[in-house]
Amino acid sequence: MSKSQEVEAFGWACRDPSGVLSPFKFSRRATGDQDVRLKVLYCGICRSDLMMNKNYWGVALYPTVPGHEIVGVVTEVGKNVQKFNVGDKVGVGCLVGSCRKCESCANNLENYCPQQMLTDSPPYVDGIIIHGGFSDHMVADEHFVLRWPDDLPLDSGAPLLGAGITMYSSLRYFELDKPGMHIGVVGLGGHGHLAVKFVKALGGKVTVISTSPEKKEGAIKNLGIDSFLVSSDPDQMQIAMGTLDGIIDTVPAVHPLQPLIDLLKTDGKLVMSGGPLELLDLPVSLLISGRKIVAGTDIGGLKETQEMLDFAAKHNIVADVEVIPIDYVNTAMERLEKGDVCYRFVLDMASTLKVA
Amino acid sequence: MSKSQEVEAFGWACRDPSGVLSPFKFSRRATGDQDVRLKVLYCGICRSDLMMNKNYWGVALYPTVPGHEIVGVVTEVGKNVQKFNVGDKVGVGCLVGSCRKCESCANNLENYCPQQMLTDSPPYVDGIIIHGGFSDHMVADEHFVLRWPDDLPLDSGAPLLGAGITMYSSLRYFELDKPGMHIGVVGLGGHGHLAVKFVKALGGKVTVISTSPEKKEGAIKNLGIDSFLVSSDPDQMQIAMGTLDGIIDTVPAVHPLQPLIDLLKTDGKLVMSGGPLELLDLPVSLLISGRKIVAGTDIGGLKETQEMLDFAAKHNIVADVEVIPIDYVNTAMERLEKGDVCYRFVLDMASTLKVA
Repeated sequence: MSKSQEVEAFGWACRDPSGVLSPFKFSRRATGDQDVRLKVLYCGICRSDLMMNKNYWGVALYPTVPGHEIVGVVTEVGKNVQKFNVGDKVGVGCLVGSCRKCESCANNLENYCPQQMLTDSPPYVDGIIIHGGFSDHMVADEHFVLRWPDDLPLDSGAPLLGAGITMYSSLRYFELDKPGMHIGVVGLGGHGHLAVKFVKALGGKVTVISTSPEKKEGAIKNLGIDSFLVSSDPDQMQIAMGTLDGIIDTVPAVHPLQPLIDLLKTDGKLVMSGGPLELLDLPVSLLISGRKIVAGTDIGGLKETQEMLDFAAKHNIVADVEVIPIDYVNTAMERLEKGDVCYRFVLDMASTLKVA
Repeated sequence: MSKSQEVEAFGWACRDPSGVLSPFKFSRRATGDQDVRLKVLYCGICRSDLMMNKNYWGVALYPTVPGHEIVGVVTEVGKNVQKFNVGDKVGVGCLVGSCRKCESCANNLENYCPQQMLTDSPPYVDGIIIHGGFSDHMVADEHFVLRWPDDLPLDSGAPLLGAGITMYSSLRYFELDKPGMHIGVVGLGGHGHLAVKFVKALGGKVTVISTSPEKKEGAIKNLGIDSFLVSSDPDQMQIAMGTLDGIIDTVPAVHPLQPLIDLLKTDGKLVMSGGPLELLDLPVSLLISGRKIVAGTDIGGLKETQEMLDFAAKHNIVADVEVIPIDYVNTAMERLEKGDVCYRFVLDMASTLKVA
């Protein structure tokens, strides 16, 4: 595809590890035969955007346009596109490419394909840097585009594409999705509050485990959790030992696992969805004495993401969001870093992005 | 039960954390209504005997008579015993008691009962210290006595009761028992070599991962393993990355988990059956990027132990053993500590134990 066929695009990019975002003109590929082009309506802000902007993983390619919780409307389809028509509401999540040949891809687990292409960072197969959803439009292979359920809100539904699928897939794959199960959720942020909603919709009981006692009241009142444990209170933790079937741990920082493993019943599962790069201390003898597991999980495949969106629409699950204009994005990033949001920012791109 | 009804017993006990064993007279309870009394024929020596003798876990009650891989012949049965008759060959493994009421017990997982009673250490329900199989006879509730399959050797079969069930249960519960699966075994000792045999009998492929290159030839020749990785060789480890469905890790000392997790495919499982009390370093980001798990498992319940013995008999699985007299036990313990045994010591109690 020649450069001349590219399409002008506009968004907000981060230029260096300061993490500061500012207006940015770039281009996207022309609509290929399998591609869907969409006007971005809303885009969620995920903690990983913050981490990528500041180059936490050491893989940032500046300038980088973040955003992988993208809801939009189709404006153009390639000639071989089968699933979508112009005017359809769609979503694009964390992935826009994978090899489509490996065992993971064959099993609808594009999220574990070694050649997966994330929405907001690496070069695409054509060598051009992929840019995310803090922009006016997107183009993606239809395989990586999700059908947006009619009755799912566009703004508060956006975080389902990243945080939501991560929580849903954790519960499903590790079989923590049975009615009556008692599930712990560690960290009540963008991911954690969606974990609560999915567990409740699946018929489970939720205990939130948090370092922040001030989150208790809101969690009980707004999210309907069944109980709240302050992890720094040894008496509370002691009483709750051996009571949980599973724990979804969304905390991205170094933290002790032992108190969490202690909360699990025999055969309990501690599922990490947001662990840090640093090594954590593992009390393996506690795993052995209770046949427990510590597991990790990373977003979900496209098939499961569609299933999750349909499940969310059916059970009225959306994120609790603060919808903001794009020119608030740097303030939002600062607030996110301090944990000052209940529970997710979503950018209103269509109404607030103006070409500079 | 009054003291006067107790039965004189004789064995070898450890008196202090030096770990040295010497002849010891004690008593066992009279045969209760549910009890089976057996003459000990053979008893395996497990690394955990060594660790208990030296009070590694801080729970040793001296004097302690070790031994939890006990094969014997029934000499007396209580009036309510239904499964056994005098003259039957039987086994007693790691457990002689549990609450019989909790969820674990109800699920045939007496090994995870919080009130479980180990064969060779804690006080029994009657308050008397339980002593293990380095002795002339044993008495145990029939629920905790295993039927010995006719065609299973008594001496080389003994280690199945501890090491064998631990390996079998690890493979079964974590679904690493499917034909064609590629399983790694870390640590080629008493546990590891039985893991190899069970994986092969289940139709799997085995790679042994070891720090000891000198074990390679024997492992290929005698155990029929498919490949051997020297864990200190980064090139070998690099080439094998992402090739294993699961790993059974039997190493009881502190060791790095990251190279093992790297060997796993997506959805791979690292199952620890012999981890140390110390904390290990967990690279949680590697679990997340491949939906991998680190798990622990501890022996097995009585139902599964019987199933394992029957499976072993059917598939001709026994341990590779060095049968020794009781007065060699201290030398054997020293050799075991140095890893100088291929792969398991078994005491010939019936022929060599003489009352001092």
